[in-house]
Amino acid sequence: MLRWCLFLCSMPLLWAQGDEIRAMMQNSQAAWNRGDLVAFASDYEDSPDTTFVGKDVTHGGTAAILARYRSHYPNRDAMGTLTYSELSVRELAPGVVLATGKWELKRDTAGGGDASGRFTLVIRKTAKGWKIIHDHSS
Amino acid sequence: MLRWCLFLCSMPLLWAQGDEIRAMMQNSQAAWNRGDLVAFASDYEDSPDTTFVGKDVTHGGTAAILARYRSHYPNRDAMGTLTYSELSVRELAPGVVLATGKWELKRDTAGGGDASGRFTLVIRKTAKGWKIIHDHSS
Repeated sequence: MLRWCLFLCSMPLLWAQGDEIRAMMQNSQAAWNRGDLVAFASDYEDSPDTTFVGKDVTHGGTAAILARYRSHYPNRDAMGTLTYSELSVRELAPGVVLATGKWELKRDTAGGGDASGRFTLVIRKTAKGWKIIHDHSS
Repeated sequence: MLRWCLFLCSMPLLWAQGDEIRAMMQNSQAAWNRGDLVAFASDYEDSPDTTFVGKDVTHGGTAAILARYRSHYPNRDAMGTLTYSELSVRELAPGVVLATGKWELKRDTAGGGDASGRFTLVIRKTAKGWKIIHDHSS
């Protein structure tokens, strides 16, 4: 009975949390699609412990993450139009969530053509809001 | 002062935790290399919430994970010899860790040739020991 009470009482919090992450991802997509990589990179925690696993591994704060994105996506053609889908959010502990989903880039030939893949994000609630502490994108 | 005390007091626990995860990964590698996919899949939490993200996404417990591995690695040639390296373990919350690293398969041509990539694991301490609740391998 107590477990059910705790479970039911925590549901609004979990929903609110999921909504916050969904809003964060929508803002992330919008930042990308207006070519604003600085805003896009600001979703990552500005810490030397932050990690990005792609084909290579990047360690470091928002400056390192931003440099990585600028090197992989040097212009608007290469950035194309980003859409996230199949977003799933799972709480790992209070203030720590796992978010997974699909990313798709619509690009013309000059930009390298269409591309898509999947992402795993570990996101932590910090004094500055929810921040990505680990990203594995493939 | 209190923060330093808490930090120093928690160090042995964090080291022990890292050692447990390292031992788990060594056992995982050994299971693969003796062709024991059942033991290999038993490191995953037997829960419908367990997720594996590779080229496709698998949801489900050890049976689903095992079926995925059996379909991708149907025989010993395809399995080859597995080596994990660059293992890094980070605590996300008490009883929840993020483990990242590199995987490499040495295989002859019949098995598909050498392959390598990176993994992100979220591992949770359960009543049955540490279990992988999410795997993103690419």
